[in-house]
Formats: sequence, structure tokens, C-alpha cells
Amino acid sequence: MSATALVAAKLRERDSMIPADWVLPEHILRHVQERSRAALDLFTETSLLTKREVLITEGYDAQALSTRIARSEFTAVEVCLAFCKRAAIAQQLTNCATEIFIDKALERAKFLDDYLRMKQEPYGPFHGVPISVKDCYNVEGQATTIGFVSFLGKPKAVKNSPIVDILRDNGALIYCKTNVPQTMMTMDTVNNVFGRTLNACNPHRTAGGSSGGEGALVRLRGSLLGVGTDIGGSIRVPSLCNGVYGFKPTADRIPHGEWVSGMRPGMPGLVSSAGPLASSPTDLTFFCKSVIQCEPWKRDTTALAIPWRDVSRKERLRIGLFKGDSRYPLTPPVIRALESAALTLEEAGHEVIELANIPSLEDGLQIAARYFLLDNKQTLTEHISAGGEQPIKALAYASPVAIVGSDERISNNPTIDDVFDCNAARSDYHNKMVAVWNRHDLDVVICPGGRAPAPPHDEHGVPVYTVVWNLVNFPASIIPFLRVDKSIDSSDDYDASAAHNLPIAVQIVGRTCQDEETLMATEVISEALGRLPGL
Amino acid sequence: MSATALVAAKLRERDSMIPADWVLPEHILRHVQERSRAALDLFTETSLLTKREVLITEGYDAQALSTRIARSEFTAVEVCLAFCKRAAIAQQLTNCATEIFIDKALERAKFLDDYLRMKQEPYGPFHGVPISVKDCYNVEGQATTIGFVSFLGKPKAVKNSPIVDILRDNGALIYCKTNVPQTMMTMDTVNNVFGRTLNACNPHRTAGGSSGGEGALVRLRGSLLGVGTDIGGSIRVPSLCNGVYGFKPTADRIPHGEWVSGMRPGMPGLVSSAGPLASSPTDLTFFCKSVIQCEPWKRDTTALAIPWRDVSRKERLRIGLFKGDSRYPLTPPVIRALESAALTLEEAGHEVIELANIPSLEDGLQIAARYFLLDNKQTLTEHISAGGEQPIKALAYASPVAIVGSDERISNNPTIDDVFDCNAARSDYHNKMVAVWNRHDLDVVICPGGRAPAPPHDEHGVPVYTVVWNLVNFPASIIPFLRVDKSIDSSDDYDASAAHNLPIAVQIVGRTCQDEETLMATEVISEALGRLPGL
Repeated sequence: MSATALVAAKLRERDSMIPADWVLPEHILRHVQERSRAALDLFTETSLLTKREVLITEGYDAQALSTRIARSEFTAVEVCLAFCKRAAIAQQLTNCATEIFIDKALERAKFLDDYLRMKQEPYGPFHGVPISVKDCYNVEGQATTIGFVSFLGKPKAVKNSPIVDILRDNGALIYCKTNVPQTMMTMDTVNNVFGRTLNACNPHRTAGGSSGGEGALVRLRGSLLGVGTDIGGSIRVPSLCNGVYGFKPTADRIPHGEWVSGMRPGMPGLVSSAGPLASSPTDLTFFCKSVIQCEPWKRDTTALAIPWRDVSRKERLRIGLFKGDSRYPLTPPVIRALESAALTLEEAGHEVIELANIPSLEDGLQIAARYFLLDNKQTLTEHISAGGEQPIKALAYASPVAIVGSDERISNNPTIDDVFDCNAARSDYHNKMVAVWNRHDLDVVICPGGRAPAPPHDEHGVPVYTVVWNLVNFPASIIPFLRVDKSIDSSDDYDASAAHNLPIAVQIVGRTCQDEETLMATEVISEALGRLPGL
Repeated sequence: MSATALVAAKLRERDSMIPADWVLPEHILRHVQERSRAALDLFTETSLLTKREVLITEGYDAQALSTRIARSEFTAVEVCLAFCKRAAIAQQLTNCATEIFIDKALERAKFLDDYLRMKQEPYGPFHGVPISVKDCYNVEGQATTIGFVSFLGKPKAVKNSPIVDILRDNGALIYCKTNVPQTMMTMDTVNNVFGRTLNACNPHRTAGGSSGGEGALVRLRGSLLGVGTDIGGSIRVPSLCNGVYGFKPTADRIPHGEWVSGMRPGMPGLVSSAGPLASSPTDLTFFCKSVIQCEPWKRDTTALAIPWRDVSRKERLRIGLFKGDSRYPLTPPVIRALESAALTLEEAGHEVIELANIPSLEDGLQIAARYFLLDNKQTLTEHISAGGEQPIKALAYASPVAIVGSDERISNNPTIDDVFDCNAARSDYHNKMVAVWNRHDLDVVICPGGRAPAPPHDEHGVPVYTVVWNLVNFPASIIPFLRVDKSIDSSDDYDASAAHNLPIAVQIVGRTCQDEETLMATEVISEALGRLPGL
């Protein structure tokens, strides 16, 4: 079969998973095709959900919903059906899903309902909660193409990734997988198999990447908890772009074994973190705490055997304020959100310390990019070539070659010395970053999650404000805060009118392994900042 | 100055630090020179210690001693003096020390006594406890030569390594530094600056390495707690050889920043662990718990911000029994100790599960050796050449080239592909090792700490039974158990009479980051096995 035929067959297969009576009417789909209205806006015109289904999908976050199901206020089956339907709508509005498997989820939901009826106790902390997963995770019976044409011919997964098993064995309903960029190394969720995922807030803006499908789906509440991965910003960027909460844990706290990265095995340097995208800050904690309390290290060899620690809430945090790097100037709405957040936090009684002498983001970016260049076999590029497909546009800006720039030697012929140099440079960079925390005895740092709200497609640029935290392996979360307002955020260099109403966000960063403290601070800060309307 | 003159000057300087009235009489020193009697034996003939000093140095472990000092039963000054004197004796009997600084320690002890008197509370958990450190740590005003002639010209340290500061700021008395092998990469503590450290139990046997000075000093109770480092067995091998307790934590739990390794910065692969050698199993916990409770991550950027967890004592452990790898056959006393330990543990109510299908030690050793070959600049060898000195004999057996053997390609020209291959192989090896724990739901594994009790000088061979746990970054302790008995341990291949009375040991291994559980199991198992007489 030709590549084109393979892709067409794959899309037909995927689309066939949506029941005919859930297909949206032509006049709505036309807007999607023409990108003339935003998914969030169009959603209000769909009338597929019953009142009760709207309540189920909009009335609670994941933790609250699990409580309601455990109390038999809702059955797992009706919750499953509601979210499958809503995800099917979200898929038609944003093209966020890669695999949809409603029947299997419903079957599991029936089992959970029976279990609860018989045993009078929930099957686990996620009992009945629908959880979506990024396409890179294996789900038994489903494909794991991660958007490579060359992966279309691969057999379907014969077993779940351990994180999928852990979620499922603790009551979660796994019902769909979500879209990623070709190579999963860019901030634009587009590939030559599934096409482009649209931002839920604005069809002309990127959904972010690489967990962009999750970002759009969670924003549309087609899922309350999505599992993403983040090696440079891939959980945080789509969270920011779509206006949801996201958390990149310390690498290896949340299991990420037996997934498909497409990368060459043994790649030195940055380690991808698995973590949640969610509609509330407390759900970030709920997810991490529940997964870690399952002792994932007994099922996934990547997971560190560090038990969950309940940390006490700190009412007066010491928060370092990092107002950005002049080499990567912030756009007006991001500056406004950050300054407003700092002021609000001070008013709420927290100590906000403006940081000077934070290590240069450019230095951090250069080290990260050089690490990514170390694969002299260019494995990701090989996957593209093998499918006879073209590289996506975003690879041009995100490619390490583009970042490292004129240094062609390392990109053409990386040597063993580059490994030593990268490691030594990272160690030095890490030391300087830890010193910032120590100098001011900080609990967390508040900083931008990116230079701008969701940019137009294929214009995101390198995610410098997120990748540095991967480089030093610090946990970091995204808190949606404020929206772009064209009347106050316009400047000579920034067209705020085109970005009007897009979500803005702040990023909260903690120390390596202090995921518990970082999540606690994320909750405390989120409360002080207030909930973004509509979330 | 010539190399010979530099070395002579250094030794004169070191020897001058021992007060004249602490110099041992000629008839004892002659035995040392002739290696005709063991240090432990000779020690009983020295009469420098008062009865009270014998009580102070022999009556307690570090934790118990700190309690006595806090209760003013002993002053820090008299404790300091007693241990300085005892260390000076140990030095003359085994050549275990590189730097001795009694005056500074006494000055600090006076301060601590004053503090306690005035504040009526100890200065920290280590109040008044003398702690020795391996030569690789920086102590302000002292040299850090790590046995390289080429390092003799370097200026003395202008500041302490963070771990030294942490210990000192929590009450410890730092009074001497201890000997290491040239390169710190072999199991024989000998170099061309300070010469050879003798095993405390038998002068014809190795003190082990690379923390061999600590091993001999702690065995002679010239120190109750020594701080070593371990990248392949360097805490555990000298613990085993001299018959003391030792613990290699998960890398980065105990701070190891700003030390002198001599290695090329950015070396990929195994990470050195800092950890204690001690005279009791509970002191291993006391050291780790006290250091981690000081929040070392606020002072040393290498330390992971994982707080200490108090874990409950488990009276019925699930212990995997690994009886060795046929490729590296065990000597009769080691087999006897291991089998006897297993039986004793079963009788004490623990579950002992004999393990099959543990990943091959040879495979692990090969991966570790290949990592060490990655330094194409051969930095350690360069340090040797720069001093115009000869490599020590032990480097021949321990050199990664010797281990990897016929594969000259990697040793002559390591490439970036080797880094990928090593990382991928290690990840695979790690997965298999974790699977062993998971298959049997193990708390810990009990296994040999080496093939034999302390072998003759320069014949140790590669530390295959310890280095695999560095490769997978599992915490591991050494528990001295039984002694060689020539009447029952002889075989055609093993001359037990020459090894008569040498200490034997078992090794206890836990999961990455479960240092707390591993130490708890080490205490429980030590109690079941009973104390080695004389410790």
C-alpha cells in the first residue's frame, strides 16, 4: 500500500470509531474546516450532550468526580459515555485524537460498576475516571504511530505501557490516545498521519506540543486528566497554549517505561518526564499522589522508589520571581500576567523576591540543543525518511541545528568529547541554578511558561522558558492566569488583537525531587491567583 | 624540587603532625616495617592510651558516644584527644592517613565544650564525634593530593567540601584524612606519595580500596565514622577487607560535591556515591539520617532534595539470596558465611528466597568497564605521567582495558556510539535487575561482597560483586560476619591458613532511593547475625 493509502486507511479507521449519531452537523464542521470559529465557541452550539452529561463533564474535576462515582451518584458507565461523547466532539472540533476505543472503555466501566455494587468500595483512586493518554503510550490492541508514516505498518500494541496498566488497575477508564507532532520534538502538534491539532481557544493558534492533543482535549473537557510527556516543554507548552493546568514532574517519578519515543536508545542528556494535564491544580496532585502511592517502581523499572510524601501547606511561600531573559523578550500579556501574579501573591502574604543573576537561558538552551545533536545516526530523521514523508515546518525552528547555529562541526560529526562537554556544562549550569534557590532559600520560582500566549501555527520558536527546567531536572507546573486583552496588551511589536482572549499562564518551578512541595505551592499559588473563568 | 624530594617533604610534613610522645616504640615499629605482626595485634601492646581513653574509643559507637558527650559524661576535648591519639597509633601501624590536623580539631572541640556549657544543648547530632574523611575531600588548609605526585605542587584547599562543612557545622570534629590508591580506581590502597596502607587484620593482605585508609582506621577504632566514596566498591571493599560496616548509598543522597576525583569532568556512566564506614550497623543509619536531616541540598548542589524517611522496622524481611556467579567463583569462607547467614536469617523468621536468573555479573562488569574507557583523553593516566611516577601494580588488573579485553577498538578510540551503546546496555541491565526484585517482591538481596576475604596485596582482581550495584545505582551495605577458619575453609584451590582469622562479610542490596529501607534491613540482619567479636 502506498503511504497515502496507508494514511487514508488509518484515518478512516480512526473516524469510524466515532458512532454515527455523534457526528457533528455539517454547519459546525464547516467552521472547523474553514477555521472560522474556535472549538470552545463551537462546542456551545453542539447539542449532543444531555444535561446530566454536561453536569458530569463540567461539574467536577477528576478527584471530585471519582468521589461522586464512589458514592454512586454517577455510574462509571454514564461517566464513560459522557466523556467518550465529549471527546468525540472535541476530536471533530480540534483533531486531537489518534485512537479512540469507546467499547473497551465501556466494558471496563461496566466491570467497575459491578465491582462497586458488589464490594461496596471503589476499585482504586481513579475509579470510573476517564483518563486520556498521549499517543506515545502503548494501549493493548491500539496502534502507537506517534505520527510517523513509517510506523503505520507496525503491529498494534500487544500490551499496555506500565503507566496505562497502573491507571487502569486503579480504576481509570482509558478511552482515547491523543495527537503529537512528528518527532514529538516541536511545539506544533502536526504530523503527516493525523494532521494538525487545533488550539481549543483559537483555530489559528498552535495547540502547543508535543502533548498538544491532550492540551486541546482537556481544555474542551473531553478529558479531565491527560497523561503527557515533557522533555523540553511538551506538557507545559500545550497547557499554556490551551489554558489548562500541567505538571512536569522530576524525571522518573511518574513511570514512563515501555513507551514509544522514536529516539535512539541510550540517548545521553535530557530525560523525558511523564505527567498530567488537568482542569484543576489539585488534580495535578491527585494524579501524581495516586500514581506514586501505587508503588509504580514495582511495575515499571523506570520509576524511582521514592514514596509520596504529604507535605504541609505553607501559607507564606518564599517565591523567586524570574522576569525573563532579555535575549528572549516576553510579550506584553505575559509580562502583565507575571507582574500581576507577583503583586497578587505579595498581597496574599507571600514573599516575592525578584531574582537577578539567574543563569542565562541561552546557555541552557545551547546545552540542551547540543545534547539533542549527539545522535549521529539521526534516528528521528530516519523515521521520517523511512515513511517517504516530508518533515513538518516546525522542525526548522525547533531543530537543534537551528539553535546551535553556526557550529556545524557538532551537528555533522558529534564526538565523544561533546558528551563530556555537554555533561560538564550541564553540571555547571545545574550548580548555578541550585545556587539561586539556596541564595534566597526559595520554595519555588515563578516565571513565564513561554514568551507569548499560543502563537500562530508553526511560529512557536524554541521553548526556551521550559526546556531549561528539563536540563536541570526541576519539576515545573503551568497555572493558567488571565487572558490576553487587546485593549491593554498591544504594543508596536505585538499584535494583541489577533491573540485576544487567549489564555496566559505562569510557570512554577521547584527543586529536583521536591515534586510534593512544587505541587503544594502550585495549589497555594493557584488559589491566590483565582480560577481562570471557564476552567 | 624533584618528585622524590617533593614526596619526602610531604611525608616529613605529615609525620611531623604526630606529637613526639605519641610515636610508637622501635620494637613495635619494626614489626610494622617487617610486616611480621598485624596492626590489631600490635595495638594491644601499645600503652599510650589511658584507661579512660580506651573506654572512650572502644566503649561506644558514634551515636552512643555523641549521647555521652551531650550528657557531659565526656568532654569533646578529651574525646578528640583520645581519637587523635588512637588515629596516630593506627597511622603508625597501617599507614592509613594522609593529613593529620590535631590542633584544629582540638580548637573546635574546645568551642563545642563551651557551646554545650553555655547553651545546655549539643551543637548538632555529631556533637563532639571525631569523623575522618577520605583524602579526596577538601579540608580548608590541607592538601588534597589523592596520592598523585603531580598533585603535590597544588595549593592547599581554601575551603571545605560541602560534606565536610555539613559534618563540622553539626558538631563533628574533622581531624584527619585517609589514604587512597593511585587513581582511586583500584582495590589496593597504595600510591607513590603516601605508600601502602596495611590491612588492620593482616599486614600481608590488602586494606581494600579505594577508601582503604578509612577501612584500616575505623577497624582500629582510630575513627568511629569515616566518610568514603564508592564508584565500584570503594566503600564496601575496604569495609569487607578490614571487617567493618560500610554503606554505599544511592548516588547523590549524601552530598559529594566539590571533591577531587581526578576524573575528567562530564564523564558519562557511573556516579560516585559518598557514604560511611562505621563500627556498628546503626551508625551507618545515624550518619545518613543525620546528614540528610541537615538538608544537604541547600549546601551542596549534588545532593538530591529527598528528605529522610523514618521507615518502620520489618521483623520478617523478604530476602533474595544470590549465591554468586559461576564465572566469578566464591572462595570457601565466603560460601560458608553466605550459607550460614541465610540459615540464621531463616531461623530468625525471615523469608530467604534463593534467586535464579539474576543478570550475569560479567555483563554488568563489561558495561561498567566500557564506561570507564570512554575517557579518550585518559585523564587519570595523564595525572600519573605528569608526576613522572609509575602506575601502581593494581592498575593492571583493574584497568578497564584488562576487563574489556580483546576489544581494542573501544579502548583506543571510543566513539559517540559507545555512549549510546553503554547507556542502552545499562538501561537493559537495570531493567533486568529491577525485575528480580519485583518478581519476588524482595525487600533486599543478600549476596557476597567479594569473592574472597582480603586477598594478598595487588591480587584483589576486579570488584565484580560490588560494581554491578553501582552500575544500577542500588544502595548496598557490608555486614562483617564470621572469620576465616583454616580448619574448615581450606580447599584445593584456596589456602585458608594464610587467611586465617580474616573477617568475612555479606552484602545487603536494596532498591534505588530506598536507602532508608536498605539501612533498616542492614540493622535487622546485623542483629540476627550477631556482632563480629572485636568490633
